Amino acid sequence: MENIKQYMLQVGQQARAASRLMAQASTNAKNHALENIATAILLNSTKLIAENAKDVAAAKQNGLDAASIDRLTLTEKTINSMAEGLRQIAALPDLIGEINDLKFRPSGIQVGKMRVPLGVIGIIYESRPNVTADAAGLCLKSGNAAILRGGSEAIFSNQAIAECVYRGLREAGLPQNAVQVINTTDRAAVGELITMKDYVDVIVPRGGKSLIARISEEASVPVIKHLDGICHVYIDDEADLPKAIRIADNAKTHRYGVCNAMETLLVNASVAAQVLPELGKIYLNKGVELRGDEAARTLVPQMKTATEEDWRTEYLAPILSVRIVANLDEAIDHINTYSSQHTDSIVTENYSKAMRFLREVDSASVMVNASTRFADGFEYGLGAEIGISTDKIHARGPVGLEGLTSQKFIVLGSGQIRV
Amino acid sequence: MENIKQYMLQVGQQARAASRLMAQASTNAKNHALENIATAILLNSTKLIAENAKDVAAAKQNGLDAASIDRLTLTEKTINSMAEGLRQIAALPDLIGEINDLKFRPSGIQVGKMRVPLGVIGIIYESRPNVTADAAGLCLKSGNAAILRGGSEAIFSNQAIAECVYRGLREAGLPQNAVQVINTTDRAAVGELITMKDYVDVIVPRGGKSLIARISEEASVPVIKHLDGICHVYIDDEADLPKAIRIADNAKTHRYGVCNAMETLLVNASVAAQVLPELGKIYLNKGVELRGDEAARTLVPQMKTATEEDWRTEYLAPILSVRIVANLDEAIDHINTYSSQHTDSIVTENYSKAMRFLREVDSASVMVNASTRFADGFEYGLGAEIGISTDKIHARGPVGLEGLTSQKFIVLGSGQIRV
Repeated sequence: MENIKQYMLQVGQQARAASRLMAQASTNAKNHALENIATAILLNSTKLIAENAKDVAAAKQNGLDAASIDRLTLTEKTINSMAEGLRQIAALPDLIGEINDLKFRPSGIQVGKMRVPLGVIGIIYESRPNVTADAAGLCLKSGNAAILRGGSEAIFSNQAIAECVYRGLREAGLPQNAVQVINTTDRAAVGELITMKDYVDVIVPRGGKSLIARISEEASVPVIKHLDGICHVYIDDEADLPKAIRIADNAKTHRYGVCNAMETLLVNASVAAQVLPELGKIYLNKGVELRGDEAARTLVPQMKTATEEDWRTEYLAPILSVRIVANLDEAIDHINTYSSQHTDSIVTENYSKAMRFLREVDSASVMVNASTRFADGFEYGLGAEIGISTDKIHARGPVGLEGLTSQKFIVLGSGQIRV
Repeated sequence: MENIKQYMLQVGQQARAASRLMAQASTNAKNHALENIATAILLNSTKLIAENAKDVAAAKQNGLDAASIDRLTLTEKTINSMAEGLRQIAALPDLIGEINDLKFRPSGIQVGKMRVPLGVIGIIYESRPNVTADAAGLCLKSGNAAILRGGSEAIFSNQAIAECVYRGLREAGLPQNAVQVINTTDRAAVGELITMKDYVDVIVPRGGKSLIARISEEASVPVIKHLDGICHVYIDDEADLPKAIRIADNAKTHRYGVCNAMETLLVNASVAAQVLPELGKIYLNKGVELRGDEAARTLVPQMKTATEEDWRTEYLAPILSVRIVANLDEAIDHINTYSSQHTDSIVTENYSKAMRFLREVDSASVMVNASTRFADGFEYGLGAEIGISTDKIHARGPVGLEGLTSQKFIVLGSGQIRV
């Protein structure tokens, strides 16, 4: 325990020192590092797969479930896509140093804002080893230093990827400590990381809800977090019904286990009879379990009864709750009560209702006539994504490079003093 | 204690409900409310002064120091400036609902960002009753609901101002609970306020360092905070010396007790002999105590010896620490080590050094050839200021209306689904 404290303190100090150098690193040096890491990962694919095999063997012995083992396993294909991801990050514009809104003030000074890195970012994740490369790349490009703490089940894989990252940084003339991958599986390391206020500026946990909830609870460093994805689609009485059916189908059934999948469908009472039976058929054919209120169940008899708990549940599974609402007000009320403020969509052709929905629904992504599945950094054009925030301060929704930065004020004077 | 919990829970729930309505309130209604409150404050000045007199009498009886009593006291003049402040906030543009960067994506959806209120803002402050009107005005204009907790010594004044605020809100057709002024002096109310995550989105403490440090320590709600203001001026060897002397004088002596006053002066060794004796004379004539390193003391013999502690101290008083540095690197190193990341300024005519200082100094405000005293919401053109943040996420430096908002993503589609 005392050793871990000592080790993490050193990691923190090294990260802080490296962050000063990274904040000044040229775009060119950062892009070179990213290219170098990509190359190193490809050149070392055999070694990466061999190291990963140790993790996978241990995971099997420890009886890890098939889905987790799948996420843990590295293949030629996942290694290629790690390298490709790093090259895509290199191709993104460098935001650091960008100056905006430089304006003269009556005193004669010019005041503007300069985009700067946050400093040191701690990332805590679970079994996917590709997060190591991905998170390192995003932090590096945004001029931050990163401390990465992956799941203990991926320790060999992560250390092997870390070697590639360190080499890529060194070869580009950047400090190796700009990315540090924690080399202990001791959980005490996480406790230190999330409370080292002097050395860590923000924590981004990536993983299951319980991990994130625990970290937010215990952290004293600010956390950019993603909790539930309880997403809604509301089919308005003035919806174009073919669009509504297409969107409601896609939002639920395109992928079930993702945070931007719809979990609750709200349907305006006056069109429910026109859309729900047809939608019910689609869902049931795809094996989606339906749970509805009484009005919905009348239209789709195979539907089970939804309980209060259903409105608050992120199924991440082929289950959908359905509720009939009288009007837009009821829909917005339901969403602002039960939504996890992640992503909610209205289907309507009515301009005023679309505008009201956009304004009044208090979620990170609010949509009109589009599937909730679009809530994603790539689809939004951010180029890459470190996570999706359901917080309200700093960053809402998909967090790309910009979310890992902030703006400081700059003042350009010519000798002005305050009078 | 149980009663306070109950009371604060109710306050929180009312604030959350009011915040929904405030987020949709029209610019017109918000401006009307601000005008109404200003008018009510002016019409009730006699009553405000009478209620304030009770606080002042109690404060005197309790032996409060003269400076605190001065901050506590309301006069016709301070009442007029409260009303004027509210009218200035009414005149500021409404940021809420502003849509930026709406762009088409290859999928056909349009993605942009809409500026939205944070929701419920808790403000904790000390004895100045004018903060009640000021903070209420800023939260109201930015579409937030506010919970205000002023110092117990100002309880009568704050409740009297609160009556004006409530009336102004009601008369504009806005929910009275959009601003709630806590009516108990029980400290347990603060403990509740800073941990009601479900009902409060952000806490802004305004006051002394110990108040802010304690609140940040104990809060589970995010805090926008301002700790020290250890500000630096660095006089470069390529400085225009008359400018340097003017700025170094102003930054220290314009006002002593403010967070953007200079506390440490750094002087390049090769110009120290030219500027320090003259500056020393100016400071000593104004009664500023000087504490320097050995090299500085050689040039100004009246200077005391600065200790390591001096570099870390925000004097808020006529005391200045002075250090001679060999070059820009040493200056930046000193600042990034000892600065509180509030405001730091370089005086130089050299372009490259100015650019390096702007980029490499990791503070909320970084200046070239200007007095640190300009770090202020009004001087920056924010129109008003709820505080100055020394945090790195969400907002750095002076926090105006924009700092009380965030941006959500909006997606405008025409039936798009993810393929």
